Amino acid sequence: MVLDTEIIVDGIEVEKPVLITSFPGIGLVGTIASAHFILELNLEAVGVIESKLLPPVASLFDGVVLPPVRIYQSKDMGFVLIHSDVPVIPQIAYDMSRTIVQWAGEIGAKRIYSIAGVATFEDKRRVFGAATKKELLEEIKEHVEIFKTGTISGIAGSILNECVAKKFPGIALLGETGGFNPDPRAAASLIKAMNKILSWNINVEKLIKEAEIIEAQMQKLAEQARMHEGVKREELPMYG
Amino acid sequence: MVLDTEIIVDGIEVEKPVLITSFPGIGLVGTIASAHFILELNLEAVGVIESKLLPPVASLFDGVVLPPVRIYQSKDMGFVLIHSDVPVIPQIAYDMSRTIVQWAGEIGAKRIYSIAGVATFEDKRRVFGAATKKELLEEIKEHVEIFKTGTISGIAGSILNECVAKKFPGIALLGETGGFNPDPRAAASLIKAMNKILSWNINVEKLIKEAEIIEAQMQKLAEQARMHEGVKREELPMYG
Amino acid sequence: MVLDTEIIVDGIEVEKPVLITSFPGIGLVGTIASAHFILELNLEAVGVIESKLLPPVASLFDGVVLPPVRIYQSKDMGFVLIHSDVPVIPQIAYDMSRTIVQWAGEIGAKRIYSIAGVATFEDKRRVFGAATKKELLEEIKEHVEIFKTGTISGIAGSILNECVAKKFPGIALLGETGGFNPDPRAAASLIKAMNKILSWNINVEKLIKEAEIIEAQMQKLAEQARMHEGVKREELPMYG
Amino acid sequence: MVLDTEIIVDGIEVEKPVLITSFPGIGLVGTIASAHFILELNLEAVGVIESKLLPPVASLFDGVVLPPVRIYQSKDMGFVLIHSDVPVIPQIAYDMSRTIVQWAGEIGAKRIYSIAGVATFEDKRRVFGAATKKELLEEIKEHVEIFKTGTISGIAGSILNECVAKKFPGIALLGETGGFNPDPRAAASLIKAMNKILSWNINVEKLIKEAEIIEAQMQKLAEQARMHEGVKREELPMYG
Amino acid sequence: MVLDTEIIVDGIEVEKPVLITSFPGIGLVGTIASAHFILELNLEAVGVIESKLLPPVASLFDGVVLPPVRIYQSKDMGFVLIHSDVPVIPQIAYDMSRTIVQWAGEIGAKRIYSIAGVATFEDKRRVFGAATKKELLEEIKEHVEIFKTGTISGIAGSILNECVAKKFPGIALLGETGGFNPDPRAAASLIKAMNKILSWNINVEKLIKEAEIIEAQMQKLAEQARMHEGVKREELPMYG
Repeated sequence: MVLDTEIIVDGIEVEKPVLITSFPGIGLVGTIASAHFILELNLEAVGVIESKLLPPVASLFDGVVLPPVRIYQSKDMGFVLIHSDVPVIPQIAYDMSRTIVQWAGEIGAKRIYSIAGVATFEDKRRVFGAATKKELLEEIKEHVEIFKTGTISGIAGSILNECVAKKFPGIALLGETGGFNPDPRAAASLIKAMNKILSWNINVEKLIKEAEIIEAQMQKLAEQARMHEGVKREELPMYG
Repeated sequence: MVLDTEIIVDGIEVEKPVLITSFPGIGLVGTIASAHFILELNLEAVGVIESKLLPPVASLFDGVVLPPVRIYQSKDMGFVLIHSDVPVIPQIAYDMSRTIVQWAGEIGAKRIYSIAGVATFEDKRRVFGAATKKELLEEIKEHVEIFKTGTISGIAGSILNECVAKKFPGIALLGETGGFNPDPRAAASLIKAMNKILSWNINVEKLIKEAEIIEAQMQKLAEQARMHEGVKREELPMYG
Repeated sequence: MVLDTEIIVDGIEVEKPVLITSFPGIGLVGTIASAHFILELNLEAVGVIESKLLPPVASLFDGVVLPPVRIYQSKDMGFVLIHSDVPVIPQIAYDMSRTIVQWAGEIGAKRIYSIAGVATFEDKRRVFGAATKKELLEEIKEHVEIFKTGTISGIAGSILNECVAKKFPGIALLGETGGFNPDPRAAASLIKAMNKILSWNINVEKLIKEAEIIEAQMQKLAEQARMHEGVKREELPMYG
Repeated sequence: MVLDTEIIVDGIEVEKPVLITSFPGIGLVGTIASAHFILELNLEAVGVIESKLLPPVASLFDGVVLPPVRIYQSKDMGFVLIHSDVPVIPQIAYDMSRTIVQWAGEIGAKRIYSIAGVATFEDKRRVFGAATKKELLEEIKEHVEIFKTGTISGIAGSILNECVAKKFPGIALLGETGGFNPDPRAAASLIKAMNKILSWNINVEKLIKEAEIIEAQMQKLAEQARMHEGVKREELPMYG
Repeated sequence: MVLDTEIIVDGIEVEKPVLITSFPGIGLVGTIASAHFILELNLEAVGVIESKLLPPVASLFDGVVLPPVRIYQSKDMGFVLIHSDVPVIPQIAYDMSRTIVQWAGEIGAKRIYSIAGVATFEDKRRVFGAATKKELLEEIKEHVEIFKTGTISGIAGSILNECVAKKFPGIALLGETGGFNPDPRAAASLIKAMNKILSWNINVEKLIKEAEIIEAQMQKLAEQARMHEGVKREELPMYG
């Protein structure tokens, strides 16, 4: 099989890292969480993932070009992070997953954490977990609810499928989100669960504040809508 | 020819197995039957089939990730099973069939049984059989009706085509189904025929009960519809 | 160039055969004729042609699986026959033609006869012929009308094009058909011409009878239509 | 880069030929001109160009099969001609141009003349010329008008682009045509210019007569239209 | 990965050049600027970029054929320029960017300047800059405004992404434009910024005059529109 994805990276300096993968999906839960890691821990990109099928778009941060799928590392926290600004179309998901899982082996990663959101349309912010082997559920079951039955679609799912195929230990952590809006509160819950599982201590206050602002806006909008039907819905800020 | 399908599997421990292939199709007959094998015989996946063109989706069972096309084995019953949660688009059928039949040779399989459904729109639950050679019909003709004339489309058909091309003994077993709803009763009939052909003794009571529940729902719906035209049809549970 | 067609065949035992190619087209003329060869001469398939782009469908004949494009031989009559149940999409025509003409050379074939139909919308059943070289027209001009000007499209045409390119002697025999319905009478005329050209003696009575049945049905339908406008047209049996 | 075009040809016997390329385009100007060369000089095809992406269609001329893109030569006039019956879709243009220009080098061609039409919607029949280098314009500027600014699209343009890339001397000769109908008068003008540039003496009387017949038909149609609005326009004969 | 883009060029004679890339985009700002370099400095093409996916179209300049993507050099000014007449579809952007950045290394380029436009819908003509590394911003920050946050899409963006991936120093210079019309004034501002950054002295008077003509036309049109609603908008000249 010809693979059309390539990982280009400077030497990874974290030994036996956990590899976190984050691609835009429902509620942008994973994306907001990984963007928070980058900002909060002041991480710098050490590599990129390239593919013919990614959209040709460069992001700018303080005037510096950021390719759409970037790789970060934190020696202190012992992780390597793949963060994507752009969603990955199904045609590319297998290709990219296969490349990522193979590379995880090459850098000696001990776990892959695929982080994303899951929509329940309930107003809760639980975190659900699943894993590629029963034994791995032991590592997370005290900190998240096990996602017993269902499906994980998109690249988050195909990374896990590839982990099963290659017998690489993979874990999914899914932040519950109530709807289709960017959901920093779900991202905060996700990070809190990761703090427990991985013995981290990443502060999520900024995300909580952001959530409160969005929720206040939503609240106001709902009140206006009640007073005046047909009101046009204000665009909420989009992450990523 | 470049093939885009790959079989990744731990050592198969069944000698001269029969290889059963099951992909979602009409009435989900084959899929319900093979899912029943997995649950009833408590089988564990020993491998997967991967392809760039399969949809990127992972299923969860008790929190454990299941890739969409999985391989199981039963040493006791002497079979290897390829079970797919997802339908296979025509563009991929040839590729996958070719890979499967070649692999059947590599693991020393003595027969391929392609199981599926066939719609007759009669309210019967016969099981029809066809084979890649006249001599093979002898093995099944006392337990199923021979499917004399017609076509088998989709991957169930292309696996048989590939068996003919490579002179691999292939048999189709098709459970008759009356419509387009998931049909556990047809799956039960199919398994009963397999029990006879392969000298198995797989219990199908659970499927019969499931069928009775569905049929009772259907009956009730039909009565309601007669009483009140325009009633909205309740969604029936979907398998697989 | 990467070719995606493959011919898989047991040893051909006919020396210097003529190779007949038959794919579904207008009036199914070629297909009815070659199906008649198979039934009348009781031929058994000795091989298949495979391609990723053929539809995934298996036909059944007396319970035995028939892949869509099959190869037959008749040692008595000195021919090898490629018969297809399915039409070939333009995207695949070149690939398949190239593979067929190359294979014709490998089995030492002395001629390729591409048989098909040609629509004139006249109520005649002439047979038209064309060839890849002027000298070849000599072989057929007493038994068919030369098809002076026009085009042959689809794989019947691309096989001839490939014959020209590779200097392989190719002949087209086209049974005239009056419309778009399956036309066994045109197929019978085509076979009669082949009988003359190739000194065969294949009986076409069954085809004539079939034609009479269809024509009687058509006649009746036409009368009904005259009596009662708006009558719904009965489906005619489809070959292949 | 994988090229999907192939030139299959018997030995070219013209030394240092000019290579003329002609593909159907506006007014069929180039195609009518090159078809006229073939008929007037009684040329026989010595090769073909094949591609997966050409439509599967064979033309017939006096019962003999003609593949869609053919190669002719005239030892007397010192040229090799590529004549296509079918238009070439943009997806194939680069591939075919690249193959043609490379082949031009292999046969020692000294010039490529890409002939085609150009629509001005004026009722003139000028011939326009362009070239891949300023010095080449010297060779044609006394016999044609230089096409100063504009674009040449389709394979006529991409052959010239490829000539520039490979530093192969290429010249475009474009017969002016007034509209979208086949235009033998424009083809005649084009040939007259080629007669001058290449010191040929090809008679164009037949084309002029054909033009007069078409123009008389057009005239009559115009008169009828003036007399009776809504008259249905008669189909004009199509070349190629 | 198979790349479908090829750079064909005569020896580049500029040592350690800056490489400027210019593809049509918003306001045609980059294209007008690079076309101005070619005319003002009287540059001659020394090479082309070819790809299967570029449209088959040749431009003419004074009767001489110009392929759509051309390479120029100026020994005096120390630059190499890639100028495209045609926009590049997203499917080709990665391929072309990768080829360009690799080639930039081969010719010993010290910087890539990707020039383009940026729409702000304000009536200003600022020039914005971004770079692949913070240190590079130092080189431009006194002459342009840093484009802090946002995205650069199309090939202009994917060239920068590829620069990041391959650690090649890349700079984006984006001329602000108020709308979707060709904007020579924005191109002039862009060139003035380049004059400062690169210590050039390219005259932009012609562009300013062109801008004044277009602006006068726009002004007149606006007045007419105010006087007479529903006036049909005159087509403005299109560059490139």
